[in-house]
Amino acid sequence: MISFRDTDPSAAIGFGGNTLDRLSERRDDEPFIRSVRADAAGRALLFVDDDILIAAGDVVAHPRAVAEALGADWDASVFLGLDREGPLFAAFVPPPGEAAGMEKENLRALAMSARVSDPMLGAIAQGRSILSWHARHGFCANCGASTMVGTAGMRRECPSCGTQHFPRTDPVVIMLAVDGERCLLGRQRRYVDGMYSCLAGFLEPGETIEAAVRREIWEEAGVKTGRVTYHASQPWPFPSSLMIGCFAEADTTEIDPRDAELEDVRWFDRADILPMLERVHPTYVAPQSVAIAYHLLRAYAEEGVAVADGSTPLKISA
Amino acid sequence: MISFRDTDPSAAIGFGGNTLDRLSERRDDEPFIRSVRADAAGRALLFVDDDILIAAGDVVAHPRAVAEALGADWDASVFLGLDREGPLFAAFVPPPGEAAGMEKENLRALAMSARVSDPMLGAIAQGRSILSWHARHGFCANCGASTMVGTAGMRRECPSCGTQHFPRTDPVVIMLAVDGERCLLGRQRRYVDGMYSCLAGFLEPGETIEAAVRREIWEEAGVKTGRVTYHASQPWPFPSSLMIGCFAEADTTEIDPRDAELEDVRWFDRADILPMLERVHPTYVAPQSVAIAYHLLRAYAEEGVAVADGSTPLKISA
Repeated sequence: MISFRDTDPSAAIGFGGNTLDRLSERRDDEPFIRSVRADAAGRALLFVDDDILIAAGDVVAHPRAVAEALGADWDASVFLGLDREGPLFAAFVPPPGEAAGMEKENLRALAMSARVSDPMLGAIAQGRSILSWHARHGFCANCGASTMVGTAGMRRECPSCGTQHFPRTDPVVIMLAVDGERCLLGRQRRYVDGMYSCLAGFLEPGETIEAAVRREIWEEAGVKTGRVTYHASQPWPFPSSLMIGCFAEADTTEIDPRDAELEDVRWFDRADILPMLERVHPTYVAPQSVAIAYHLLRAYAEEGVAVADGSTPLKISA
Repeated sequence: MISFRDTDPSAAIGFGGNTLDRLSERRDDEPFIRSVRADAAGRALLFVDDDILIAAGDVVAHPRAVAEALGADWDASVFLGLDREGPLFAAFVPPPGEAAGMEKENLRALAMSARVSDPMLGAIAQGRSILSWHARHGFCANCGASTMVGTAGMRRECPSCGTQHFPRTDPVVIMLAVDGERCLLGRQRRYVDGMYSCLAGFLEPGETIEAAVRREIWEEAGVKTGRVTYHASQPWPFPSSLMIGCFAEADTTEIDPRDAELEDVRWFDRADILPMLERVHPTYVAPQSVAIAYHLLRAYAEEGVAVADGSTPLKISA
């Protein structure tokens, strides 16, 4: 029987709390888009490259006059959607002078602070992903011509060959392989001392989520997994991933990585995980709560995993 | 407690049975890629635009001599991975003459036939998605220069600005909204008479899977949903989507679409679904088993849904 959980873990993960009404069905309605751009309640998130501008009082949604004074092109900005206060846009601006009284903040730091609400943090992730895509997609991949921003800032159009281009979102699988009371974590070279996290990698063309989970664990750890269960997802705006968080059941336990992507991969006792998350473990530490890995690990540490008894082997195909 | 199912529904859905060992960790290993290209056991899937070439005996993986005689550029082909018989590649060829004895088949028809195995059908989906991406991405989106195919055919490189481009996979949510013993289906204008299917749409930057599911149902039907549960995923090579199949619990039931994307949206009794899937319903029909919609509908029809008793409202945020 199909059943539902009483929580939506995805909405509780950093950048996952976006509640804008995107009105995506009205993006091609030019008079409507002109009217939202003219709305006096309109505000814009302003980005300097990858960072966001914050005014006094932790204000990140700036009125049109402020945005234009800082150099935003209001009519070419991205329409993100409506919140209770009105239309919200996103635009790039050049670095402001000190007199502007703006602080530049990076999104990871912002997510780890409590300076903006969860819905606003989600809108910021949306804006940053789309602007970053615009910045890297000024030309038509089909013919090489310069492209132009479409009506609501949510697509680019090629005047030469007519191709429409839409922002890309790259699915990434991130997963915790479990062997009863042990789970598999890896360490990237760039991590701080003692840090271990879930394995992850881009889903490839022609793959299911489950197949991508098994392949990545196999490549990075040499561990075979069978059963996979989805837990939660997270938009990750660096620059535009969809993190798909899963658990996988280990069928083998020997670690023998096929690639050299990780500096180390090892099994951790379930009992070590909460201390790692709470940063009181003597040796190891796990990611912070802005990362979906934190939430996979917390669910495992708090809930544990029901181990199959072996009498019901996984049926992979029909 | 985290629990696993005893089946992997994704592997049983059309195009989801890919079992190639992609060896993605060795794609940058030029001597290795040269050696797999030189392997006498190498075979290639050959595409004429969107269709695949089939030789007598339902052979879709052709030896190098056949591929080159038909005009394939073996050294620029896409390395898909290894199966038991050796390396498998994918390449475009020009339309062959009648003397070549090749049949051209489109992938939907192939998937609905039993002419190739599930793993081969999955490999075909992989090859078609990647080739289709190459065909539409000959130029650098960052600077407009012509790009070149990278070592294993799995990326493009810009000789002018140095940007690397990877095949894109677009996440699409496809879902069945349920209200106890009723479920919500829609009809696109292009459907055959009587056909209804699940609602679906592209996931957008800054969205979780669950948020995209709720947004699409709201836009296409005007129905509010809360709880969402993931069921299965499917690679969909037209041209390169990842279908993410979910169930959603309806919080409202009045239908009042916000967009005009569908010709009709209505509630169907659960009892009608199996006859629709089996094509014995007097009035309506549902998609064929190549589509993930079929599998969402079958799971609902066969298993039903556990209805929340209202005492445990959905907690959307932490």
